Amino acid sequence: MTLTATAEDASFDPHTGERTGAVPHSTADDVSRILRRANGAAPVLATLSPAIREGWLAAAAAAVLAASAELVDLARSETGLGLARLEGELARMAASARFYGAVAREGSYLAVSRDDLDGESSIVRGNFPVGVVGVFGASNFPFGFGIFGHDVASALAAGCPVVVKAHPAHPRLSVRLAQVVRDALAAAGAPEGTFDVVVGFDSGLQLVDSPLIRAVAFTGSQQAGMALVERGTRRGIPVFAEMGTVNPVFVTPAAATDRDVIARGFVDSFTLGAGQFCTKPGLILVPAGHGFVDSIAASVARVASAPLLTAGIAAAYRSGLAELDPHTAPEPQPAGYEVAPRVISASLDELAPGSRMLDECFGPVAVVAEYGTVANALAALDRLQPSLAGSVFSGAEGDEDAVAAIAQLAQRVGRVAVNAWPTGVATTWSQQHGGPWPATSRPDATSVGAAGLARFVRPVSLQNATSIQLPLMLQPQNPWNLPRRLNGRLVPCE
Amino acid sequence: MTLTATAEDASFDPHTGERTGAVPHSTADDVSRILRRANGAAPVLATLSPAIREGWLAAAAAAVLAASAELVDLARSETGLGLARLEGELARMAASARFYGAVAREGSYLAVSRDDLDGESSIVRGNFPVGVVGVFGASNFPFGFGIFGHDVASALAAGCPVVVKAHPAHPRLSVRLAQVVRDALAAAGAPEGTFDVVVGFDSGLQLVDSPLIRAVAFTGSQQAGMALVERGTRRGIPVFAEMGTVNPVFVTPAAATDRDVIARGFVDSFTLGAGQFCTKPGLILVPAGHGFVDSIAASVARVASAPLLTAGIAAAYRSGLAELDPHTAPEPQPAGYEVAPRVISASLDELAPGSRMLDECFGPVAVVAEYGTVANALAALDRLQPSLAGSVFSGAEGDEDAVAAIAQLAQRVGRVAVNAWPTGVATTWSQQHGGPWPATSRPDATSVGAAGLARFVRPVSLQNATSIQLPLMLQPQNPWNLPRRLNGRLVPCE
Repeated sequence: MTLTATAEDASFDPHTGERTGAVPHSTADDVSRILRRANGAAPVLATLSPAIREGWLAAAAAAVLAASAELVDLARSETGLGLARLEGELARMAASARFYGAVAREGSYLAVSRDDLDGESSIVRGNFPVGVVGVFGASNFPFGFGIFGHDVASALAAGCPVVVKAHPAHPRLSVRLAQVVRDALAAAGAPEGTFDVVVGFDSGLQLVDSPLIRAVAFTGSQQAGMALVERGTRRGIPVFAEMGTVNPVFVTPAAATDRDVIARGFVDSFTLGAGQFCTKPGLILVPAGHGFVDSIAASVARVASAPLLTAGIAAAYRSGLAELDPHTAPEPQPAGYEVAPRVISASLDELAPGSRMLDECFGPVAVVAEYGTVANALAALDRLQPSLAGSVFSGAEGDEDAVAAIAQLAQRVGRVAVNAWPTGVATTWSQQHGGPWPATSRPDATSVGAAGLARFVRPVSLQNATSIQLPLMLQPQNPWNLPRRLNGRLVPCE
Repeated sequence: MTLTATAEDASFDPHTGERTGAVPHSTADDVSRILRRANGAAPVLATLSPAIREGWLAAAAAAVLAASAELVDLARSETGLGLARLEGELARMAASARFYGAVAREGSYLAVSRDDLDGESSIVRGNFPVGVVGVFGASNFPFGFGIFGHDVASALAAGCPVVVKAHPAHPRLSVRLAQVVRDALAAAGAPEGTFDVVVGFDSGLQLVDSPLIRAVAFTGSQQAGMALVERGTRRGIPVFAEMGTVNPVFVTPAAATDRDVIARGFVDSFTLGAGQFCTKPGLILVPAGHGFVDSIAASVARVASAPLLTAGIAAAYRSGLAELDPHTAPEPQPAGYEVAPRVISASLDELAPGSRMLDECFGPVAVVAEYGTVANALAALDRLQPSLAGSVFSGAEGDEDAVAAIAQLAQRVGRVAVNAWPTGVATTWSQQHGGPWPATSRPDATSVGAAGLARFVRPVSLQNATSIQLPLMLQPQNPWNLPRRLNGRLVPCE
């Protein structure tokens, strides 16, 4: 192994497996310099009003949209994902950045509270930005969970400088996208160090271990996520890891009349983006005797093969298939990372602790299990690992099996979708993208939606401070027009 | 070592060191049975309205107040703390339990939010109780952070059954107090399993490792806290550990005119409860040339010796003193755990990383360091470990050194008290009791104040669910009259 071989992240075309370019790794000195600059920007960001940061985010969103054609082209060449998918993902990324800016301006995330205590004394409390945030983006969403995705935009909105580690599945896109965002932020007036990118595995470790990094957000595999969590825990910084899960779907007996629509919807959902969604429905429980297995198999047969993101993901998919179904014929291995979608039948009994079927298999494969009684199906749901999301398909209003399944799933996932597939994740105030471990390392947190900002702030109380001694957000005159709690009473902003 | 020797927690009189009784350890079967009962109660608690739990907490508070004489007597015999202190602590414990009940009823902690999405679809989000909570109380606050203290009452208020581990420093009080609380909760209608206690080190480990425990709250030493945090992290449950810190105090040059008042206040604060407060000010930075060292020494000389809680704490205090000041004469070792208060002078240079002076020394000792320039003092503050709290003593309005020190301390502690000592922690909406690691394992959380409930809930989103499919808190009719966010707009309850 030569030095050159490890000092860059290479790009490959997933359709052919051919190398198309490379990006050099950041050196340890690069990373140190970037971290110092970010740390220098932290107090500036913390002092400015959220409305100013909203402007920066809007400017960066506009710049990314303006560069859409070039960025989508780069993303296609590195990920093999389709044009419409990538254009849509980029547009949603820009919209999300604007949303997080608006959430910051609204100001509830600052949780400002003031109490008058006995006599002259008082206590105020508010959320302060934690400082520089390190973000590890995902392979599967080069825009949505990448360089300017949910973690990055919500950390910037919360007033934290961000250093992102480029994902090796799309290094050229990462570096170019980072350049667009960095330039747009600078042009909008953000201080130097507000945002930057580093490249390479060692750079990632340097981020997690740096005392200048105050929180880490990660999207990816359980193995990598938990390694980061343990590393962060040792020095007491929060690591918000969103990891992959099975995301079960339960179809009630009353919903069986919609068999073919559900079967088609299921296949569309689990093959979306070649099955590379963390919210992919990897398991569906269907009532026996209604022909679901055949209907799903017929739908799968109509879905074309598609390339996975990387050679490693394609290899893991093939070995995952072999574990899920040892009797399966080995996949043909075409040029590039192309794979065919697959569905695997299982009995409820096979969904037992230790079964490979209970772990995520990244790619276009899902398990169908027929159940005899609803009680047995619910018991099987309860044996599954917690997940990010789950779905329940119900019959008409009054379907009591659906009520029971929804209540039960709510104990084990972060989001329950009713008569809807888990793959779509709207960026809204009420979104929760995060479930109990091992779906995430922090089930109280979300990586999508308004509550995402809360990951990057820390409450501080100030007791008996006079107005001049308080930061602007906590001053009695409320210069930022924030919603506040005054002596326990919630007071929305005017 | 016989079986009997390890199968009980013995009580000792801190004034004499004499054994006064013992409580048998819970067996593994006891703990399993208690956990199963608690787990059985969890869905009931989660379904009932917060107002009902408020009633339970008020009933338990009343029962504890009614048993005050007996409980304070037991506490005195096991802790050596004074009558007035313990009576006050018990009364504040009862008031806090009522406060957490009121916070639950107010309902903001449920964070209910609803968005109408495109077309017919909707998404709602709210906080669900996590399930059974394990609480490890503190040695130093047998009431405030004990069997029915902040962690326990806020978890119950949030809708979680609680299993507390009795602290070995006061086992007889723990068991008796638990009985009073358990009986009162049952009489008020709480289901069996809502609250219970276990005794013994092994019982504690069984709690942390049980899949039925969904969150842990701990108050105590860094060593024990971090061991629990690592144990919990391995299986993905949150461990909220509040650990001990130095809690620095900064006196500005302009405040030097109040020298004798500050010196007396400092000594009163660091010797309160024989220095056994997690918010004890362990270090004060004073301007040189104003006679602070002598004034503090004169105040210390007037404070009587007092017993520490346990033989172990007294031994650690004596060895801590020897490390802080190797030239000190060894403490006389009276009967029991009595120690004299001590103050130790240091230069700013001695407050360097690695110095024993930067770690908590539990007991009535504190360090005084004189500074020459404010810049040097602030630089020294920045080298300290993060703390739970810190104080700034300032001169008249317009003291710019105070503004700078407050802003700087806010980056490193959970609470900054201005012209007030850190030892008093009010139970209010705006309280923050928790700082960056190693002060706590979760700097975003607080163990005192209204936000304490947030530790014991987990957000769940429900997408496209009909009214009948939603839990009461999320139903559109708002039967619990909760503050909500509707399409992004904050709507206080009527």
